Amino acid sequence: MLLEQINQPNDLKKCSVEELAQLSGEIRQFLIEKLSVTGGHLAPNLGVVELTVILHYLFDSPKDKIIFDVGHQAYVHKILTGRREQFDTLRKYKGLCGFVKRSESEHDVWEAGHSSTSLSAAMGMATARDLKGEDNRVIAVIGDGALTGGMAFEALNHIGHEKKNLIVVLNDNEMSIAPNVGAMHHYLGKIRSDKTYKRAKEELESFLKKIPAIGGALAKTAERLKDSLKYLVVSGVLFEELGFTYLGPVDGHDLESLQDTFKQASQVNGPVLVHVLTTKGKGYSPAEADSHKWHGITPYKIESGQVVKAVGNPMYTEVFSEAIIELAEQDSRIVAVTPAMPSGSGLLKFAARFPDRMIDVGIAEQHAATMCAAIAIEGLKPIYAVYSTFMQRAYDQIVHDICRQDANVIFAIDRAGFVGADGETHQGVYDISFMRHIPNMVMMMPKDENELRHMLKTAVDYNDGPIAVRYPRVNGVGVAYDPVMTPIPIGEWEVVRDGESFAIAAIGPMVQVALEAAEQLKREGLNVRVINARFIKPLDGAMLQQLAKDRLDLIVMEESAQMGGLGSAILEYYAEHDIYDMRVKLMGIPDYFVEHGSVKEQRQEVGLTVEHVMAEIKKMKPRIRTRAK
Amino acid sequence: MLLEQINQPNDLKKCSVEELAQLSGEIRQFLIEKLSVTGGHLAPNLGVVELTVILHYLFDSPKDKIIFDVGHQAYVHKILTGRREQFDTLRKYKGLCGFVKRSESEHDVWEAGHSSTSLSAAMGMATARDLKGEDNRVIAVIGDGALTGGMAFEALNHIGHEKKNLIVVLNDNEMSIAPNVGAMHHYLGKIRSDKTYKRAKEELESFLKKIPAIGGALAKTAERLKDSLKYLVVSGVLFEELGFTYLGPVDGHDLESLQDTFKQASQVNGPVLVHVLTTKGKGYSPAEADSHKWHGITPYKIESGQVVKAVGNPMYTEVFSEAIIELAEQDSRIVAVTPAMPSGSGLLKFAARFPDRMIDVGIAEQHAATMCAAIAIEGLKPIYAVYSTFMQRAYDQIVHDICRQDANVIFAIDRAGFVGADGETHQGVYDISFMRHIPNMVMMMPKDENELRHMLKTAVDYNDGPIAVRYPRVNGVGVAYDPVMTPIPIGEWEVVRDGESFAIAAIGPMVQVALEAAEQLKREGLNVRVINARFIKPLDGAMLQQLAKDRLDLIVMEESAQMGGLGSAILEYYAEHDIYDMRVKLMGIPDYFVEHGSVKEQRQEVGLTVEHVMAEIKKMKPRIRTRAK
Repeated sequence: MLLEQINQPNDLKKCSVEELAQLSGEIRQFLIEKLSVTGGHLAPNLGVVELTVILHYLFDSPKDKIIFDVGHQAYVHKILTGRREQFDTLRKYKGLCGFVKRSESEHDVWEAGHSSTSLSAAMGMATARDLKGEDNRVIAVIGDGALTGGMAFEALNHIGHEKKNLIVVLNDNEMSIAPNVGAMHHYLGKIRSDKTYKRAKEELESFLKKIPAIGGALAKTAERLKDSLKYLVVSGVLFEELGFTYLGPVDGHDLESLQDTFKQASQVNGPVLVHVLTTKGKGYSPAEADSHKWHGITPYKIESGQVVKAVGNPMYTEVFSEAIIELAEQDSRIVAVTPAMPSGSGLLKFAARFPDRMIDVGIAEQHAATMCAAIAIEGLKPIYAVYSTFMQRAYDQIVHDICRQDANVIFAIDRAGFVGADGETHQGVYDISFMRHIPNMVMMMPKDENELRHMLKTAVDYNDGPIAVRYPRVNGVGVAYDPVMTPIPIGEWEVVRDGESFAIAAIGPMVQVALEAAEQLKREGLNVRVINARFIKPLDGAMLQQLAKDRLDLIVMEESAQMGGLGSAILEYYAEHDIYDMRVKLMGIPDYFVEHGSVKEQRQEVGLTVEHVMAEIKKMKPRIRTRAK
Repeated sequence: MLLEQINQPNDLKKCSVEELAQLSGEIRQFLIEKLSVTGGHLAPNLGVVELTVILHYLFDSPKDKIIFDVGHQAYVHKILTGRREQFDTLRKYKGLCGFVKRSESEHDVWEAGHSSTSLSAAMGMATARDLKGEDNRVIAVIGDGALTGGMAFEALNHIGHEKKNLIVVLNDNEMSIAPNVGAMHHYLGKIRSDKTYKRAKEELESFLKKIPAIGGALAKTAERLKDSLKYLVVSGVLFEELGFTYLGPVDGHDLESLQDTFKQASQVNGPVLVHVLTTKGKGYSPAEADSHKWHGITPYKIESGQVVKAVGNPMYTEVFSEAIIELAEQDSRIVAVTPAMPSGSGLLKFAARFPDRMIDVGIAEQHAATMCAAIAIEGLKPIYAVYSTFMQRAYDQIVHDICRQDANVIFAIDRAGFVGADGETHQGVYDISFMRHIPNMVMMMPKDENELRHMLKTAVDYNDGPIAVRYPRVNGVGVAYDPVMTPIPIGEWEVVRDGESFAIAAIGPMVQVALEAAEQLKREGLNVRVINARFIKPLDGAMLQQLAKDRLDLIVMEESAQMGGLGSAILEYYAEHDIYDMRVKLMGIPDYFVEHGSVKEQRQEVGLTVEHVMAEIKKMKPRIRTRAK
């Protein structure tokens, strides 16, 4: 095994190209085996084996900076930089991170989980290098899907202007997580697919060379014309126009071609874009056949490609998926908008049923949000289906375009709360804090999947501005559905368990946690009132007033950043109403980034469990008893 | 006067082109006269007179949707849609808004103050139109500067893909607020400037037409070649590659050409980009000569072009401008980054002194933020100089790239708080609420310009992660500068006035308001402790504990959204420390969008004045006295 001798990038440099080919095969085998047990981003990593090997072969990491856009295609990089033996712990609590992670290795120079940041990172590193008078290389690897994200274009535009030395590797596998959307995609397709076209261009080039002089006024402007003729013989005009030298397309699984092209790229002055064609899932036939399914995968059987299916109640995403079709059958105003997440957001069935009413904009969260505002202003009901973590990209558009114009946009915020194995880059724990303070916003979270259905109906029937429903990346509680989806009065909370010793106001999965704690505390003689605080905004003032009248101490539980969260909202309410002897304890996520693991481990780490809330209540007990008299 | 007969767009439609020319002249004169008294965005509006006239002449607003990117170039549109007589109230409290405003007119179909949203709006409106089976036209007018914003590219990419019927008018005046940056700018320059090039292309086109058959293998691929040859004869290849039909460039002050081109555009199936060349400030020589200065202007004398200068203490921006040069002289790690605001952010002098250490990225707030993270990771000290309202665009990058990686980025947040005449799209009142909850963030606001200097030094010397200084768009207090800039211990507040009757914790300009209130209350026998709560994060726990020990009721004053603000932070602190009998009153900006007017009027409207805080304290008084015993 060659692979066992590679413990750092320098070990690669002694290899011949034949050995690199052997090594690539071994890496593929390693990934297929390891991920069959741990799960992970298989298809993207199988696609970049040779590319990653060549980059580490030719360049000198960590002096040279290799930046991976959306760090999930860095497994091969991790294998080559001394972390091969940690792959059994991949994406597990305290184990190897599924993304680039600076604390893991000096070779991890830039972290990302969200897409399209690598070009800005490269520009920053190149700028710093030049200011420091150093001479290292900077290489950013970005997928064709990520290239549609607006900030990638902002960076392209700036890089092309400044003419810094850096290499952009466009890893073109014809898809992001979902099939790629956008004019850029068509453009790349034109370059990659058309070999006849390329041959014709070569012939035209040779033909034009044979014409000694075109004569007349043209002769005087021959120099300028060269610029124009370039379009006939160079692919990637669009990138050339933006100031890049374009090289490619090159077969991303052909080590010799890759080597030649990157050697050439190293010699170019100014920014270079190397267009590399890769196949997602390369070398493992089930993954090649269905690279969407195999993008991020749970454990599987290698021989059959059969995936070990998790059993359990339906995920909230699935509940959303079905409910939204039901609602759209009844209400023709409904339009679904997703930024490149039709599958993850549960919109595939909707798209099949209502192809015209489903809009996938590609990785373009900002555009999606503002477009929703305009659709709403024109009288339709856009549902912006997005993960909490990616919605961060649209904060300004939510403030400036949606809420300020009070547009009837529905936000279906998936993966709100802890997300498990994807870890800190993907945690959906800030949306309450960054949306609650925006005027005109209404924000809900259901305690179970049945309530999610009612909330979606609530949102569809609401015509007074933006309204958000957030739901977690976990299985539902397993409750039966009510036969009819019925709107919930805006701002109305629900007492799910009465009690007069304490109160817990909880949202989402924390309602179940609170109920279990209440059940156990009953045995100890404490009757805990549990409130489903399902409207994060507006609050249920009457219920908060009642708590104060009943002199109940209150614990607020939310799987969300504690700062600026529901707990703060409740504190603000009491302060505003001059109720200043109300004792409120906040249980949310403390002020740091929580790393990967299972959702259960993440909750345990921050203290959002039955045991923790019981302990809190017991701590509060004595003082309450005294004061209640 | 023709202008007096135009009270709605239909009145235009009876005019001849000659009359439209006369009308354009009258509109120019009107703008020059009116704005000499009110101030406003003169140069941009002088640039779009003919363009706006032609759009309303040819299209049928409001059925046809005319969308203005960054609504400040909609004055001519307002004149033509029945608001001529309100121009004396332009940008004044309760007067005509300086931006497009839906509540003012049915012709105002889309509001914007931030740039680059118009293409997404157009796409949304075209999508809604097609779903509703309607047939109106959608026209978006976007400047060349705004085109560099990432979300504009996201929209271009999506529009080119979907092939919707809509017209994008690229209003190319070679600059946004600042001189334009980026490869796109060079590209547009190439198209607009090179007439020889254009002639040569025409000659080549005719030459190629004369060749009857090229012969050989080429003949077989003639069809494909046509695609390539297009590059020789069509400008705007880049837009064509993205799926648009490109028309132009056309002289934006030539009504005949504009008319012809837009008629042609109306006949094209699918998206069209009309490239219109305009001159900012057209028709008023001082504004033509210095269109930056005349972009947004205070009142001026028409004859001389002399601007009526405001007198007063230096603005915070100027204090920043000078301090940052002093600091950069001492610390070579400092690099300034601005998204197209070198002048507004006070970086022009810095740029002159340190040209290599000043990076203007164009309108690209996201790229700027992420690039800062990378520069910081490479050991330098980037200062991201940006307005509070525009920083909203970079929320995700602040979370995911800067704070999560704990990068030493300094935020210099200008125009924090009310911004006056620009109004609700530009209010800098959310940055505390959207930044405070992000882990690793440190956030400060100075009480006066001397403290701003110390805070900048604090930020430069701080090496433990991101740190922000926010300051308002007002004049400083007029204090003298300390000779040396000295770092302030992180999290340390300051008692600026002692007292034992009440306490006020205030930030920024509210410290002065609190001091004045305290002074007046002293006459009534109340001794108010005033605290400069200059660190919004972290809080000064010791001082908060002391307040509780002293049993002082507390008012928190901040010119910032009350939800999720400093007041909430203080409430969270007391809740966390189980101090539940502390009476805290929050005085911040309530939960709605505050419209244009003077900063004074805006403060008055929301109750952030000396009178209001005095009234609050008097209201609180009786209960306090009882409890204090």
